[in-house]
Amino acid sequence: MADKPSKGLADVVAASTALSDIDGQAGRLFYRGYDIHQLVGASTFEEIAYLLQRGSAPGSGELGGYRAELVAGRTNERKAARLTAQQPILVAAYHAAREGRECVPADPGLSLAANFLFQLRGTAPSARDAEILDTCLVLHADHTMNASTFAARVCAATLSDMHSAVVAALGTLKGPLHGGANEQVMRGLEAIRASGGVDPVAAVGPVIRERLGAGEKIMGFGHRVYKTEDPRATHLRQMSGELAAASGDDTYYRMSRAMEETVFADKGLYPNVDFYAATVYHYLGIPTDLFTPVFSVSRMAGWTAHVMEQHADNRLIRPDSEYIGERDLTWVALSER
Amino acid sequence: MADKPSKGLADVVAASTALSDIDGQAGRLFYRGYDIHQLVGASTFEEIAYLLQRGSAPGSGELGGYRAELVAGRTNERKAARLTAQQPILVAAYHAAREGRECVPADPGLSLAANFLFQLRGTAPSARDAEILDTCLVLHADHTMNASTFAARVCAATLSDMHSAVVAALGTLKGPLHGGANEQVMRGLEAIRASGGVDPVAAVGPVIRERLGAGEKIMGFGHRVYKTEDPRATHLRQMSGELAAASGDDTYYRMSRAMEETVFADKGLYPNVDFYAATVYHYLGIPTDLFTPVFSVSRMAGWTAHVMEQHADNRLIRPDSEYIGERDLTWVALSER
Repeated sequence: MADKPSKGLADVVAASTALSDIDGQAGRLFYRGYDIHQLVGASTFEEIAYLLQRGSAPGSGELGGYRAELVAGRTNERKAARLTAQQPILVAAYHAAREGRECVPADPGLSLAANFLFQLRGTAPSARDAEILDTCLVLHADHTMNASTFAARVCAATLSDMHSAVVAALGTLKGPLHGGANEQVMRGLEAIRASGGVDPVAAVGPVIRERLGAGEKIMGFGHRVYKTEDPRATHLRQMSGELAAASGDDTYYRMSRAMEETVFADKGLYPNVDFYAATVYHYLGIPTDLFTPVFSVSRMAGWTAHVMEQHADNRLIRPDSEYIGERDLTWVALSER
Repeated sequence: MADKPSKGLADVVAASTALSDIDGQAGRLFYRGYDIHQLVGASTFEEIAYLLQRGSAPGSGELGGYRAELVAGRTNERKAARLTAQQPILVAAYHAAREGRECVPADPGLSLAANFLFQLRGTAPSARDAEILDTCLVLHADHTMNASTFAARVCAATLSDMHSAVVAALGTLKGPLHGGANEQVMRGLEAIRASGGVDPVAAVGPVIRERLGAGEKIMGFGHRVYKTEDPRATHLRQMSGELAAASGDDTYYRMSRAMEETVFADKGLYPNVDFYAATVYHYLGIPTDLFTPVFSVSRMAGWTAHVMEQHADNRLIRPDSEYIGERDLTWVALSER
């Protein structure tokens, strides 16, 4: 039995997977062997969900069938497709309810991303907005043994059901060290802009240098695995710039560029997936407190695929612990305490 | 980076804990340094929940305060005490609802175990029944890095909240390889009795030998860590025998003894915590499909303590995975597939 704790299980291989792979030195991410750079612009989220959940890129007929399942899944059908279909509806319905309005019915003619934006906003999105959200969903669909995926697999490994595993993943994604990072990025930008006077872009450098000097961590930068730019950040930066230009107010984008330059100059850290996702979602009109739920819409494709992969070759995930407390104490009856 | 997978994380130390410790060779279990054998009969579940959640055995005044929190927790108070108080109410209320009756209101004068039986049955339990259930809750309160506890810690390590972590643990406990084992033991006994003719006790040996011969696993026997008798089984066997004698029908107890003898003679395996828990709960009048929920009532003390321990010295739990799929594939556009 090992007696040294591997704190946080860093560098411990917990499971085998054929779903995604990271090359941290080269800054590459693969879904089932396909480089993410190939997929952006050349695939839709439905194709990627199919690829992850069913093992290969769908042909047109297979994709048609899967789309029908996703649409049917809006009321009822196979679990993984159904959960993938239901999560965006759930987020949109929640948002409509808290705004005190009826959620518009799903439009079966729209892609998952387009329909999500439609139901979230209550009005039809432009084709380009829908395409950009679709790319965001593709980019967040899976990322090896991240904490929420790992929680799903620990749960599934007791042969518990897919819904229980997905709920475990959702509760884990909720933690600020995991799913909350892009929301924190946006709140950070908002705070600097609110206190930044006439030129918030110029305010970024001094504020960030001061925080770095105080030893603070800047959300959205650095990654345990990627030692160069996170390949997802490359696409998100481009889309953030495009949306900023179209919006007529590119302040947050320019602030982000200034922050990226400052952090790189000071610490040599690259932006990770969360950094430009923040402004992309902002420019898409997604409320900041829904960033983590949007993350869950995408990662549902990966979680459900991981649960199926775990069940296909299962073993209970049950590590050891190192006991660090006192030993061989004598229990004193309550009446004598 | 390690490149060998540790399947199921067996023998990998995932975290440090001061909550419980197992000596598998000697068959001993400790809660915060106290041998479980000392605690049985000398402590109540409330004292053990306090010990786990707050770090030391409570004095009378501390226990009084904690009991008040548990009672207050039946409507509202501190999270760990509240969850510990609420879980039995939830199980009892669910059971009453599905039986189509009102759940009787909690009796603040009763211990947690006595009140649980009271609300579950709708009538006051005998003092000895309540004591026996209390001992069962003490025996199941914590057990190092089991799968549900580990799921709770993976979730909590993203700095997600205690309720999310407990929900992850509940979904994980639900799996038949974890919380479902004592229910399976009872169903196995029921099946043999139903088909066992006039002497179900005599039927046990041949049935079990046949199953073992076919390579089947018999639920309730063997443990990855304990190489001798699980110390919890010792107490559960005794209580099962006591309740059987008092019930006027000791058939299930005698069947259990016969099964224990057969499995030991054939495989050298000892009964684990699940084996005699099955008949104890049965004789206490707990419906078989509530065995896992009863497990959750007890383990809530451990889960909540583990979440607090994780938060007190936190690091994200994020292991690696070994990629076993194809590499560097070329994505073909949908129109060409």
